[in-house]
Amino acid sequence: MSKYLNPRFGTFDAYVPGEQPRDRQYIKLNTNENPFPPSPFAQRLARQAAAELQLYSDPEVKALASVAAQRLGVKEENLIFTNGSDEILYFAFLAFCGEDTPAVFPDLTYGFYPVFARACGVDYQEIPLSENWEVIPGDYAGADGTIFLANPNAPTGIALSSDQIEKILIANPDRVVVVDEAYVNFGGETVVSLIQTYDRLLVTRTFSKSYSLAGARLGIGIASEGLIADLKKIKYSVNPYNVNAMTAAAGVGALLDREYFEKNVETIKENRAYLAAALQDRGFCVLPSETNFLFVKKPGISGGELYRGFKERGVLVRYFDLARTKDFVRISIGTKDELDFLIRALDQITEAQK
Amino acid sequence: MSKYLNPRFGTFDAYVPGEQPRDRQYIKLNTNENPFPPSPFAQRLARQAAAELQLYSDPEVKALASVAAQRLGVKEENLIFTNGSDEILYFAFLAFCGEDTPAVFPDLTYGFYPVFARACGVDYQEIPLSENWEVIPGDYAGADGTIFLANPNAPTGIALSSDQIEKILIANPDRVVVVDEAYVNFGGETVVSLIQTYDRLLVTRTFSKSYSLAGARLGIGIASEGLIADLKKIKYSVNPYNVNAMTAAAGVGALLDREYFEKNVETIKENRAYLAAALQDRGFCVLPSETNFLFVKKPGISGGELYRGFKERGVLVRYFDLARTKDFVRISIGTKDELDFLIRALDQITEAQK
Repeated sequence: MSKYLNPRFGTFDAYVPGEQPRDRQYIKLNTNENPFPPSPFAQRLARQAAAELQLYSDPEVKALASVAAQRLGVKEENLIFTNGSDEILYFAFLAFCGEDTPAVFPDLTYGFYPVFARACGVDYQEIPLSENWEVIPGDYAGADGTIFLANPNAPTGIALSSDQIEKILIANPDRVVVVDEAYVNFGGETVVSLIQTYDRLLVTRTFSKSYSLAGARLGIGIASEGLIADLKKIKYSVNPYNVNAMTAAAGVGALLDREYFEKNVETIKENRAYLAAALQDRGFCVLPSETNFLFVKKPGISGGELYRGFKERGVLVRYFDLARTKDFVRISIGTKDELDFLIRALDQITEAQK
Repeated sequence: MSKYLNPRFGTFDAYVPGEQPRDRQYIKLNTNENPFPPSPFAQRLARQAAAELQLYSDPEVKALASVAAQRLGVKEENLIFTNGSDEILYFAFLAFCGEDTPAVFPDLTYGFYPVFARACGVDYQEIPLSENWEVIPGDYAGADGTIFLANPNAPTGIALSSDQIEKILIANPDRVVVVDEAYVNFGGETVVSLIQTYDRLLVTRTFSKSYSLAGARLGIGIASEGLIADLKKIKYSVNPYNVNAMTAAAGVGALLDREYFEKNVETIKENRAYLAAALQDRGFCVLPSETNFLFVKKPGISGGELYRGFKERGVLVRYFDLARTKDFVRISIGTKDELDFLIRALDQITEAQK
């Protein structure tokens, strides 16, 4: 860092995205991407938008808001769109945390939360997961700040029920609660309908996972009109044209092509069950996942050894080198062929251990 | 605003983008868009990228960095890419301003600078333009903070020379100077080569104007490796995948199709001269513009009257309702046909005044 950098940014490490090596072709099961391309209709609308890029994109993203509002059963005033869901999460830290309002989240969750907190100059408190890697709702009663919960949680894949989230809302009557539903379409229960009851609930979603649009960058915030107005104040103070025209068009297409979406989600769930069974057959502990990834460990081999063994054999999985997670790897759910390749690689790794 | 919003964001007004009415078709000469579509090659690369959006975009935007570095005569380590140049400007306020480092900029310039300052919680000082609407370099000697200069300036269109910018750098040996070259391709002198001498100089660029990619959202920061590392620290703490895959591809195509770019810029300069002459013939004061817009006023008619007169006749121009600018309108340079339409509308407005 130069001597000119605001010292606040010198005191912590930035987020490290999953590796994207370009030296050779890998089977990429490390960043929870969808193995299927975006909906052909989404692609077509994005391609059409490319011809008119000389015009600014719509800061209110009206066309997308209209389709998404109908799909989610809310009003357009309950929605804000962002450059990926990382941006809506960043806006939420900016808007709803502060000097006297720290952030509160589990000690094992999306690794960006502590980075957002530090980037916004706010304190944070980490509440440990249970022995079984679960969020215990009672631990969040009377929390000392704004609560951030990934539900289902990452990297565990484990979900709270809608009732459990509501308990946390009730037990924190003056707190904003942010529920990051990046993976909810793969099995968890959404709490979107609770925004009608709790004007302090912000639900965030992404098009990166279940809609195959990771490379397009599109996120949503869903909340009361009051919270959305706050978040739009941030957006218009930071980057009003944050969603480009091609991505907005792709989002419309992805939402309207419901059949394609449902078929892919169904396939990913089937493949998840297939991989979980194959790993359990091989002595793995597999956490119960409601997402498009599995968080797994095997007695006798460390997460780092698994990660390196897979990488040598052309498969990328994610390994988090932390005390709590060093036994585990996180495997994204790919196509059946990709998973069969991974299983063969695993059998070779196990063979080589003998 | 809700009671949950961080009070810092309640104390100022957000940026107001130029109007984008959807009630009828207008000739849009209000947001400095390019009248020509993006390069066909840029469109083609963007369309191709739409087919692979299930994969995350490259956070380092390597392919674009390689082409841009060659084009600008710098190293890839001297570049950062952002979601429009608003984002690189926001990152610069975050990185290089702070509690003891206010922002310093002209009292009439890009209207987003004071908003960025407020959003980042930093003070700012506005230095008045001269009677002739010029930035006076001497006024910035020994400035009390990080200097932001749009060059050419907006909404005046007037440019400083490279030598004048260097004087400001020399007269502030311990200060970061940010030169926002959004419009430089229409006539101003760039200071990109000065980053080799001044490790405290950040130059920002956009693809929105001269490259016809306003709707794609693509900005660049060009600086010493030290400043770029600082800005990347911000990016990786806020939104690592900030540039989507279609936009990155469009940027590559736009840079490589140099002939198309040069032809359009040349046409816009010709049209600028044509419109300036037509307005001067009609008694207008036209500030000398190095951009794709003209800042103009006419004795006997206010900026507001001109704005409304044009709008009634189907032409949108930009009007800033401030004490200093209330006599003026800002007119973006469109196609020859669009400008002829505007001139006819103007003659009707003048006729109606009689």
